[in-house]
Amino acid sequence: MERFKPTSNRRDFLKVSSLVSVGILLPTITLAQTTTLREGNIHQFGKREGYTDQISILVSMMDWMRATVLRSIDGISQKELDFLLDEESNSIGAMLMHLAATERYYQIHTFDYKEWGDFDKKDTDVWDVGSQLGNRARKELKGKPLSFYTNHLSEIRNNTKTMLKTKDDSWLMEETKFFGGQPTNNYCKWFHVVEHESNHNGQIKLIKSRVV
Amino acid sequence: MERFKPTSNRRDFLKVSSLVSVGILLPTITLAQTTTLREGNIHQFGKREGYTDQISILVSMMDWMRATVLRSIDGISQKELDFLLDEESNSIGAMLMHLAATERYYQIHTFDYKEWGDFDKKDTDVWDVGSQLGNRARKELKGKPLSFYTNHLSEIRNNTKTMLKTKDDSWLMEETKFFGGQPTNNYCKWFHVVEHESNHNGQIKLIKSRVV
Repeated sequence: MERFKPTSNRRDFLKVSSLVSVGILLPTITLAQTTTLREGNIHQFGKREGYTDQISILVSMMDWMRATVLRSIDGISQKELDFLLDEESNSIGAMLMHLAATERYYQIHTFDYKEWGDFDKKDTDVWDVGSQLGNRARKELKGKPLSFYTNHLSEIRNNTKTMLKTKDDSWLMEETKFFGGQPTNNYCKWFHVVEHESNHNGQIKLIKSRVV
Repeated sequence: MERFKPTSNRRDFLKVSSLVSVGILLPTITLAQTTTLREGNIHQFGKREGYTDQISILVSMMDWMRATVLRSIDGISQKELDFLLDEESNSIGAMLMHLAATERYYQIHTFDYKEWGDFDKKDTDVWDVGSQLGNRARKELKGKPLSFYTNHLSEIRNNTKTMLKTKDDSWLMEETKFFGGQPTNNYCKWFHVVEHESNHNGQIKLIKSRVV
């Protein structure tokens, strides 16, 4: 659920920061290549091969956050995946599906330029249950192995990264009226995708420690 | 609690990405000033007055995340602040103190270049209870009004921002062996400070909806 309600029921003109829209592009920035960067070391934020500089920072954050979530669910049991703290709760499995669904919907919104909620049936058939959680998720998202969730998570993330490789840093500054009806740029939207994982990771850890 | 244990008991040489250390500084980057940026619009990530460009992104994230946490506790009651889900739980108030304490300790570590844990008594006297949570926090952090926590949060954040105004983007690339004993730069450490707020915000919302 979006904390700031996106304005999906009125025409949002795609806006770009005004300097970009008059043709003054973001200058090329070059982060110093850190030659001490070890392959796969997620703790050195910076340039990532195949991505422009600012997008590299976003990817650094995504990688770090995802590794942190995966640590929380490493070796998790089926019981823990399906456990409901109470009848209003979401299971850990459902929350993992929710993370993937959220990312999928932000892909559609920011890569395909669809207004929030203007999603094809082929997507809502798969992702609405995770996106909306609640009773339907409590019914449908149980008894599924960890790999069901992690496969969805990694497939969606791979698609995000493939798309990000085709973008340059100015894409991060593209904005629409979104959170709270305010101009919201892609950097903010995708930061939200990342922090949203942390939000639910906190809940996952809390629930996991209370499984009975 | 750090998910990746910092190596505080061996000498950590302050390292900087090798290109910086041989005198090739990060080139000055100029994010296009978005003239559509409205004062106080946290949803437009980008240049912030008084900060260099990359630090502006960090500040954008900090502001966004902090606003999100404050929304969760807006109008919270004393009962909700002090509620314990069970005898192993942290109260919402304690978690807010924990956020401030974590940020304070990262200030000392990254601005004052102290190894993790090498904190003065004047700081541990104030911040250990929030940092470590547990039984001591359950005893001591109760009955305190919301302002007790939000004052600490904003004081610490103001100090962080004051310090960040004195830094340039190369400071973000300074690294020590930290998370998992791996080279970890300040960008990563401060991203953690930010996502850590989201982690506990998820728990705060879960707990708040279950207060009895």
